[in-house]
Amino acid sequence: MEIMLCGKPHQAESEKTAYDILKEAGLMTREVIAAEIDGAPVALTETLTEGASLSPLTFADEAGKRVFWHTASHIMAQAVKRLYPAVKLTIGPAVEEGFYYDFDSDTPFTQEALEKIEGEMKKIVKENLRVERFTLPREEAISRMEEKGEPYKVLLIGRIPEGEEISFYRQGEFVDLCAGPHLFSTGAVKAFKLTQCTGAYWEGKSENKMLQRIYGVAFPSKEELNAHLSMLEEARKRDHNKLGRELELFTTVDLVGQGLPILLPKGARILQVLQRFVEDEEQKRGWLLTKTPYMAKSDIYKLSGHWDHYLDGMFVLGDPQKDKEVFALRPMTCPFQYQAYLAKGRSYRDLPLRYNETSTLFRNEASGEMHGLIRLRQFTISEGHLMCTPEQLESEFAACLDLTTFMLKTLGLYEDVSYRFSQWDPNDRAKYIGTPEQWDEAQSMMKKILDELKIPYKIGIGEAAFYGPKLDIQIRNVFGKEDTLITIQIDQMLAEKFGMEYVDRDGVKKHPYIIHRTSIGCYERTLALLIEKYAGAFPLWLAPVQVKLLPIGDEQSAYAHAYADRLEAEGMRVEVDDRNEKIGYKIREAQLNKIPYMLIIGAKEEESGTVSVRSRKDGDIGAMTLDAFLEKAAEEIRTKSR
Amino acid sequence: MEIMLCGKPHQAESEKTAYDILKEAGLMTREVIAAEIDGAPVALTETLTEGASLSPLTFADEAGKRVFWHTASHIMAQAVKRLYPAVKLTIGPAVEEGFYYDFDSDTPFTQEALEKIEGEMKKIVKENLRVERFTLPREEAISRMEEKGEPYKVLLIGRIPEGEEISFYRQGEFVDLCAGPHLFSTGAVKAFKLTQCTGAYWEGKSENKMLQRIYGVAFPSKEELNAHLSMLEEARKRDHNKLGRELELFTTVDLVGQGLPILLPKGARILQVLQRFVEDEEQKRGWLLTKTPYMAKSDIYKLSGHWDHYLDGMFVLGDPQKDKEVFALRPMTCPFQYQAYLAKGRSYRDLPLRYNETSTLFRNEASGEMHGLIRLRQFTISEGHLMCTPEQLESEFAACLDLTTFMLKTLGLYEDVSYRFSQWDPNDRAKYIGTPEQWDEAQSMMKKILDELKIPYKIGIGEAAFYGPKLDIQIRNVFGKEDTLITIQIDQMLAEKFGMEYVDRDGVKKHPYIIHRTSIGCYERTLALLIEKYAGAFPLWLAPVQVKLLPIGDEQSAYAHAYADRLEAEGMRVEVDDRNEKIGYKIREAQLNKIPYMLIIGAKEEESGTVSVRSRKDGDIGAMTLDAFLEKAAEEIRTKSR
Repeated sequence: MEIMLCGKPHQAESEKTAYDILKEAGLMTREVIAAEIDGAPVALTETLTEGASLSPLTFADEAGKRVFWHTASHIMAQAVKRLYPAVKLTIGPAVEEGFYYDFDSDTPFTQEALEKIEGEMKKIVKENLRVERFTLPREEAISRMEEKGEPYKVLLIGRIPEGEEISFYRQGEFVDLCAGPHLFSTGAVKAFKLTQCTGAYWEGKSENKMLQRIYGVAFPSKEELNAHLSMLEEARKRDHNKLGRELELFTTVDLVGQGLPILLPKGARILQVLQRFVEDEEQKRGWLLTKTPYMAKSDIYKLSGHWDHYLDGMFVLGDPQKDKEVFALRPMTCPFQYQAYLAKGRSYRDLPLRYNETSTLFRNEASGEMHGLIRLRQFTISEGHLMCTPEQLESEFAACLDLTTFMLKTLGLYEDVSYRFSQWDPNDRAKYIGTPEQWDEAQSMMKKILDELKIPYKIGIGEAAFYGPKLDIQIRNVFGKEDTLITIQIDQMLAEKFGMEYVDRDGVKKHPYIIHRTSIGCYERTLALLIEKYAGAFPLWLAPVQVKLLPIGDEQSAYAHAYADRLEAEGMRVEVDDRNEKIGYKIREAQLNKIPYMLIIGAKEEESGTVSVRSRKDGDIGAMTLDAFLEKAAEEIRTKSR
Repeated sequence: MEIMLCGKPHQAESEKTAYDILKEAGLMTREVIAAEIDGAPVALTETLTEGASLSPLTFADEAGKRVFWHTASHIMAQAVKRLYPAVKLTIGPAVEEGFYYDFDSDTPFTQEALEKIEGEMKKIVKENLRVERFTLPREEAISRMEEKGEPYKVLLIGRIPEGEEISFYRQGEFVDLCAGPHLFSTGAVKAFKLTQCTGAYWEGKSENKMLQRIYGVAFPSKEELNAHLSMLEEARKRDHNKLGRELELFTTVDLVGQGLPILLPKGARILQVLQRFVEDEEQKRGWLLTKTPYMAKSDIYKLSGHWDHYLDGMFVLGDPQKDKEVFALRPMTCPFQYQAYLAKGRSYRDLPLRYNETSTLFRNEASGEMHGLIRLRQFTISEGHLMCTPEQLESEFAACLDLTTFMLKTLGLYEDVSYRFSQWDPNDRAKYIGTPEQWDEAQSMMKKILDELKIPYKIGIGEAAFYGPKLDIQIRNVFGKEDTLITIQIDQMLAEKFGMEYVDRDGVKKHPYIIHRTSIGCYERTLALLIEKYAGAFPLWLAPVQVKLLPIGDEQSAYAHAYADRLEAEGMRVEVDDRNEKIGYKIREAQLNKIPYMLIIGAKEEESGTVSVRSRKDGDIGAMTLDAFLEKAAEEIRTKSR
């Protein structure tokens, strides 16, 4: 029969497994751990049919990793059942950064228990058990799991739709209800580590029973595991949620609530610098600042579609059943900025009309989803909406993208981003407004623009906004977790809904296209990324305290304060450490607080009218006059050097 | 008997009226319209008793005006009853800017009806009827009003507490239930004008009947009336709620709701300039910027006392009866900035600790109370909280006051303010937290500070915050209406409630004093005042568009745009009017839009490399190079010249 092997036509005998075909083709290297048939990951034991396309999967492939981790989670479950037979199995998937398994256990697993489980897992790996798939008819599947005393599995079988195969995987004495696929045998899982045990509700619902979730990571080699663990260690040091608190950038308080951080003076100062930078750059590029209210009557959200498509994520003020007027906090700025467009009649001469706003938004997230400065109930975003003619769409979209590139490069985040072209899901039409024709038109227009700009994007089906497709600029944080930082969207639907028009050259009234966009995205999230990127050692232009003056003795204190005043008059952010402490101690503390420059002033400097400059990065860089230092620092700030 | 006359001991015969005594003393000039006995306004016919203090009241006195206007309202009611006998009387007081009377009438009073009533009022004034007070026992009072067919008056009599006198005033055939006092006769009301008729619910409650309210103003002379009417005419032209819309500074939209203005680019730009100016000045003065959330769990408001003392004015998210977590939007920043103080341990060395914030607040005002940019549901304020030791309180309070003086002088509003020392009301203790001793201490401390700073304040009893006394800086708008612009408060109670402490020199933990303060107050309200103050013609540093370039012909358009780019590079706010219109038309339009400078560029200027500068204020000021203009403008901006 003919199949496609790694994208090329290939002749293979019928009824052969992926393993056999790859082996015959000389592709079955040690790294291959599973296969992909017609785009879906499968075990190497899967047989191929005429016309199928086959390629090998290694741990380097995202899908390969998931197969590997899924088998690791079975090994862990097998070890737990050997050690604690009374524990009940629930589910145990591979996740983005490893795997977990949720157990119904009367007691949490202690650190010692985890080590004991790791020991048992080592044995299972050494036993190199074959992992075999088999299916059972529904009745038999249920009675098998009842015999094994696994009530959650019985429940899960009950949820498998009639007509679907009920598959199990067996390795040695261990059998688990599972859709697979898995590795060929347990021996491949050479290196692993159980990282923690936390409580987790069955099905994630707080009214259900609390289970014990054990997290782990696994790798094909000890070296890869160690590299991963050191990366995590380094990431933990940079974690904004830890470092941001240590550097007194922000705090959170139970009295206020989750997802509502309090920006302390140093954090607020960075946001102030960022906000002014963004507003000024946008202004240079022809954006007009607006300031619109954070709440509105439900009427506006009903018109925009948010009431139908986004209500769960919104904070509502008042009771829609009882109150005459119900307000809601805004989850997006769009309908508010449209009111500025609508404030007077518009002609084609007014377009493109670009509105920007430093805009605070509110999202009613569940408590468990909050995290540091990343997932919040309230955040502030560099928001913008641009109204234009169809002819202007491409160049305006390109200009929006150029603005984000400029911002990302200036902040030093450009190298960490990737692009995602988020499209609608035609099979889930209730999530969207507009007709399939409108979606096709907007999406092909966006595709054309992205292709012409040579943007290397991945496609995300079902990730569009409810009113149009998006270009999402994704960023990975130090832990490797991906989040959307920036988004640029094309919308040809809301202008019509809101009655936004312009009189075109031909005298005919038309609806403008709208581009929704951010330029650096959400300020809090950007701050989090910057903390992690620079491990708190911000570039001079962003540092909340730029210079610390360190008088050596009491005699130099007045001198230091006079210098501080001069630096402040030039707009620099300055502190004086005139405590009665040893200079070495003061330097160490300033270094720990990641202050870019320390100016040390002793009797010698006082006499020669200089300061001894110590750079956080380069250490002692010698004595110079204050003017010389100011010139150097001003240049570093002006160029936003990193 | 001995009395006090105008503050000096005076011998007078017993049983004499105020009129008699003033006349004998040669004080009964034409201007005197009523008297004040022991601080209360009374009619001139009132008799004096031993030891009383007496002074004359004229229209120039606030209390005199009210007597005058009250009589005017009776004259209006008398005219209405003569013309429309079926109309029922309700109440008709003097108010801040004139008087009104609410009538129960089946139809509204048209403009023609108002003129007819004015005509009848003229007759009543000419008749110069004596205004006489008399009292009746309750039963008789009721039956008199029943006879006259005045059901509202019967109702009002029923509400007069047992034992109090029930007084009436009679002028000619007209009798009204009224506490008085009044003028001696109707002839004094020489000049008046009925300004409008609006609907008003009986007792201000929307479930009650809609009455017809006629407003009027009255003066002792035609000249004063005319001056007042021209003032109103001028004020109407400057009214921010009209002019601010015409100049495209803001708009409001029914879809969004009342009290939630949309700042259009020009308005938002002014606020951006103001905000940066305020934040920079505060930073220079040692304030540390914070950025705290706009909402919090109800817990924090329960602790602060807002939940008990301010709930009606707050927007609550969720249902306190049903939901596990209830949030509320913040009406004040205090408890949020305290969290920054609480983020670590504090010692006396850290004090004073000054936190400022550009803070958005939310107040759940009733729909009818909204007005332009003055009364809002959401506004942004230059908020600050300062923690200090008792020894630092006076100098820090003085510094806060100095900051507000600096701001008001820079904005040009200083001449329009007055000071109000707002104290608690010891007879209404439920409104406040703390003990009488604490209030006495805080108020006498504040009195001492204000007296030492020689602040000319009036006292407002019952106007304190629930946690402490305030210095309110009041401002009059163009219509003469007074509003609080800025407030500085002393609080010795909330630090204890929030567990805010510092370790003093003696090693003992103490609670700091807190000063709550604003520096320019609410930005939207300040913008409203500035629009009215400058009639939209803002000083150069605040003008949303500072310079408009006007090319005379198409040939100069590129030249104008190149100049605009250079001006923008220097941070100026610039527009180019390159429409194909006559230069005179372009100038008129720019003048109408109150643009500070117009740079006119024709062939002559192009040739000589100059621009013809036209100032909004001074007209044509001649040709100069762009550099020379830039230098002139930069100096004007730097000095914030008006």
